[in-house]
Amino acid sequence: MNAARPAHRSVIAETIAIGSELLVGGRSDSNSLFITEALGRLGIEVRFKSIVGDDEADMVQVLKTAVSRAGVVIVTGGLGPTVDDCTREAVAKATGRRLARRKAALDGMTARLAQWGRQPNKGQLRQATIPAGATVVTNPVGSAPGFLLEWKGATLVSLPGVPREMEAMMTESVIPFLADQLARSTRTCPQPITRQVFHTWGLPEADVDAKLQGLIPKRAPVDLGLLASPMGVLVSLTTKSGGAGPVSDEALSSLAQDVRTRLSDCLFAEGRETMEEVVGRLLAGQKRTVALAESCTGGLIGHRLTQVPGSSAYVDRGAICYSNQSKSEMLGVPVELIAKHGAVSREVAAAMAKGIRELAGVSVGLSVTGIAGPGGATATKPVGLVYVGLDGGAGGAITREFRFHGDRSVIKQRSSQAALNLLRLWLIDRGRT
Amino acid sequence: MNAARPAHRSVIAETIAIGSELLVGGRSDSNSLFITEALGRLGIEVRFKSIVGDDEADMVQVLKTAVSRAGVVIVTGGLGPTVDDCTREAVAKATGRRLARRKAALDGMTARLAQWGRQPNKGQLRQATIPAGATVVTNPVGSAPGFLLEWKGATLVSLPGVPREMEAMMTESVIPFLADQLARSTRTCPQPITRQVFHTWGLPEADVDAKLQGLIPKRAPVDLGLLASPMGVLVSLTTKSGGAGPVSDEALSSLAQDVRTRLSDCLFAEGRETMEEVVGRLLAGQKRTVALAESCTGGLIGHRLTQVPGSSAYVDRGAICYSNQSKSEMLGVPVELIAKHGAVSREVAAAMAKGIRELAGVSVGLSVTGIAGPGGATATKPVGLVYVGLDGGAGGAITREFRFHGDRSVIKQRSSQAALNLLRLWLIDRGRT
Repeated sequence: MNAARPAHRSVIAETIAIGSELLVGGRSDSNSLFITEALGRLGIEVRFKSIVGDDEADMVQVLKTAVSRAGVVIVTGGLGPTVDDCTREAVAKATGRRLARRKAALDGMTARLAQWGRQPNKGQLRQATIPAGATVVTNPVGSAPGFLLEWKGATLVSLPGVPREMEAMMTESVIPFLADQLARSTRTCPQPITRQVFHTWGLPEADVDAKLQGLIPKRAPVDLGLLASPMGVLVSLTTKSGGAGPVSDEALSSLAQDVRTRLSDCLFAEGRETMEEVVGRLLAGQKRTVALAESCTGGLIGHRLTQVPGSSAYVDRGAICYSNQSKSEMLGVPVELIAKHGAVSREVAAAMAKGIRELAGVSVGLSVTGIAGPGGATATKPVGLVYVGLDGGAGGAITREFRFHGDRSVIKQRSSQAALNLLRLWLIDRGRT
Repeated sequence: MNAARPAHRSVIAETIAIGSELLVGGRSDSNSLFITEALGRLGIEVRFKSIVGDDEADMVQVLKTAVSRAGVVIVTGGLGPTVDDCTREAVAKATGRRLARRKAALDGMTARLAQWGRQPNKGQLRQATIPAGATVVTNPVGSAPGFLLEWKGATLVSLPGVPREMEAMMTESVIPFLADQLARSTRTCPQPITRQVFHTWGLPEADVDAKLQGLIPKRAPVDLGLLASPMGVLVSLTTKSGGAGPVSDEALSSLAQDVRTRLSDCLFAEGRETMEEVVGRLLAGQKRTVALAESCTGGLIGHRLTQVPGSSAYVDRGAICYSNQSKSEMLGVPVELIAKHGAVSREVAAAMAKGIRELAGVSVGLSVTGIAGPGGATATKPVGLVYVGLDGGAGGAITREFRFHGDRSVIKQRSSQAALNLLRLWLIDRGRT
């Protein structure tokens, strides 16, 4: 949906990430999510993102482009103590200002270093030089100060790239500054941009899309987004500051409710909650404990469940039974059962879940056995064939068969998600009775 | 280092990633690494990267900026079958060309869909419309065709955002096209840009920096990069097409050798190799097997080791012993030992490693016990206190104490890295004798 946007530049933002290593990619970028949400609450929309190396001339070029299209420009990185770090110089050059050491910047840094029993060295003294006329943004958690300045009708903010430092400086200084600036402008304050996220598992993207057909009324200032990954399909509802007037909170929550109804059981979490947090919340709420028997996932399910603080209350143990022998020795899976059905079978998955539950004396045993590839396939058992087992005591084990596509890493991820989802649905069912 | 660059536009590249979801970040970007390396081999340097949402006007703006500063522009994404996907429209609008359905694009798509027993639907037919005068780039692994065209002296390439499809189209069509174009130009072909990567563990960034002081001769066209993460400090040597003439292969390999000597034992891998691959290679080469006893890492070490294809040859099993009871029941750690020293202690780490080695009958047992936080700390045992144990049979267990900083996830990651590194050093030592 591309509703026409009455895009006053003051509510358009661009982020600029500085660093040659960032051009190469390969790392998850957590700063964008934080900045997008923080500015969104003010009604400022991040519409452009640029990444540029540690090259002064390239940075000048990017800064000039940014202020030509965005009223708020947030630069992260390039404020360190080494010669490579040249954000200060690039901003000074682009804006035609002098760099000078500033007392406010030096004092904050000196005080922080003193806490650690240190004095600023030569490189750190460079960090206290700020373009003339800029406001110093103090860094409450690190030594590098930031700054902000007005230039060509835009607010240019320069912050460290370290997430913890950037987040603290945004929260304590930049957001209040921008909020105040918007409040003092003659225009009416923009509507906050909100983004609601729904996490689904079990349906391909096209099927999720089909379920959501016709959800958003025509010309409604809400965007529906879909994003597929090995861990499922993410659905997002994002309000727009433009379009046919603001969307009411009521209309939004009714849309969200409609999404929930349409996605039904496939919806496993909302917002920042993860599958392992949902499962953990259900286990803790029902005072149930779990033990794992992992073959092809190799410990991934245990790793995921124990990412959640407090998980020791409900995760008792896990057996990573990679060899066939270990399945028998650790879990008591009969050797004959493996010989008859193969290690990757419904029967062995069930025996693994039962074995670990009984050994650990927990409420529920969860197991996975499968072929993650690229080797290990047979004539009847292809790469991606995975069995999940769950044994909750009464009624015997439940098993599920999956046929996943993708490389080894993707098959492991999807297997762990399928197992945790089976546990989630089982726990929800138990919670009802 | 910012060597002056004789930057002819034909060897400067910009990548543009299309998608509103990408503006929000939070996901690892694997496309950039592939494109940077592929273009680098031709001597083309990616100097700018832009991300823009699914908005035609914003995309036009970004496309115009890109061709003003880069001679090669690679656009990924926005070629799907939905109305949100408007890369085709944006390129047509920016370049002032008509969109028309093209036989070459339609034929490829129809053939591919036919393999899957399907016919193109209305959305997919839209995917076969290409700006007038553009060359169709066929998609050997998916249905969406790409295209490339010349505009304002730049080559503009539009490819799907799906990594597998983008990579195949770059390799089969785009790279040969660009290589041919460079060869036919009157300029001398640029030097390939190479990037060598060294992975270190065990030293803070400042210490790695200190070890590498004075490595690069002044004005040498090589950039030294450092990037810290919870998994260690990455060091990179990147050649520049500019600077004081090309750097010889000899000079480069002598620099790389100098890096290896200076980093010594801290260097655990080079290039794309991971710690788990290095450890796996050593285990397989020495025909040794391993079993794990994981407490605070919760299965992460097992997950990492089993990410490597073929790891079933040397990973036998693992015990995720989260509760104290499970440490005794699964590994035979004496209850009194835990009572006396606490579960997080050198003594328990040693007993866990010995226990799992004996139970599994493997060459080496590897264990971790620690406090991942945020809860669980005591007066004498802070969050981040971690013990790693290794038992190789003769001579008893080796243990190491670590005091890590960071949140739960970071402490788990660092613990797993410390354990695998201890195993790596032990295996290297065994390989020598």
